[in-house]
Formats: sequence, structure tokens, C-alpha cells
Amino acid sequence: MADSPAREESAFCPVYAALNLLQEKWTLHIIRALLEGPKGFNELSRAVGGVNPATLSQRLEHLVSLGVVEKTVESYMPPRTRYRLTPSGRELEEVIQAVERWARKHLKAPVS
Amino acid sequence: MADSPAREESAFCPVYAALNLLQEKWTLHIIRALLEGPKGFNELSRAVGGVNPATLSQRLEHLVSLGVVEKTVESYMPPRTRYRLTPSGRELEEVIQAVERWARKHLKAPVS
Repeated sequence: MADSPAREESAFCPVYAALNLLQEKWTLHIIRALLEGPKGFNELSRAVGGVNPATLSQRLEHLVSLGVVEKTVESYMPPRTRYRLTPSGRELEEVIQAVERWARKHLKAPVS
Repeated sequence: MADSPAREESAFCPVYAALNLLQEKWTLHIIRALLEGPKGFNELSRAVGGVNPATLSQRLEHLVSLGVVEKTVESYMPPRTRYRLTPSGRELEEVIQAVERWARKHLKAPVS
């Protein structure tokens, strides 16, 4: 069985890293929602649907650390922050569009 | 906070379903590995790297149930099965290629 962590230890592979990022639960949904435009935390939470606030915060922090999303503080009292895709983040639109084309062509509602 | 499962209960959205599928841990890696060609279970496990066999089985079953992957039994003694992408599965190449283009352009090795 090949459960060795060999890949993680080898030279950095950007594609492997990107697949790891995009498989984090909610991340693809967050990117899709932000492609519609910048959003506040609660608005984003509603748009994504079902994610708990702690997880959403964590995902956003990771995306910010990779330069995919940027966070701007619009006011402190009351606290208001907004999240938007950076130019690099907006280029993920190609990925989301490819998923959309595939989904509309191939996924059907489950027969219940 | 918008933690209601409203989206899940509403009409079937193929794009939402596809994003849910692709965010399952290892699924993007499995698809990328199978785009190189059909593989046996152990070979696929090695190609994906780091996945445990129970999780890999579960992911493959899900992909088979959605018509993305097909499993063929090549011999019973010794047992030999192979996994390959269906025509619909192969069309996910567009998604993986979009991830590859983005990753090569935007992801850099972390500075350690």
C-alpha cells in the first residue's frame, strides 16, 4: 500500500498544492460566491450555505494567506469587513466555469 | 448566521452538486491520476499518495455511482480490478487543466 507521505516531502508541485487547496471543504463554493462580487462575512456565509462560521473563517484565512482573497476592514464601529478575490483569485473563474460546463452537461438530479 | 441547510433542500443544482463532489478529499487527485490512464487499485493509491485504502474505496464507489469512473474486474484469481474514467469523467480534464494553468501561474513554493 502506498501510504507514504513521499509526495509531500518531494519538491514543491504547484498543481498538487492547488488540488489540495481546492479540495478543502467549502473552498470551491467560497470562490464561486466571491466571483459574484465582494461580500461581507455573513453575506458570504449565506451565499455558501451550511458552512459554520469557524470553518468559513479558517478557509478565508488560508485563501488570504495564499493571495487568492483579500480582506478589507471598512469600519471598526460597528465592525465591517469585506472579502474579495485578488486578481489571482479571479483567474480561478476558469476553473469554476469548467466545473459549471461539466456539471450542466453531465449531472442529473438523483432519482428518488 | 446562515447555517440553514436551505440549499440542500431546494431544487437540484448541478453546479452545486459538482462542487460538492470535487471538494471531497482526494477526488481531484484521483481524477488527475486516472486522466493518465486506467489503473489498478494499488497503482492508483500510489499515484494519489497519502490516501488510506478505505477512503480511496469510498471515493471510487461514489465516482462509479455518478458515472464518472468505471470499474472492470479483469480476473478473479488473483483478484484484479481496474478503474478508468468514463467518457463523462474524461471531460473533467478541462477542470484539471484549468487548475494546472492557474497553479503554474500563481502558486509558488512556500518560503521556509
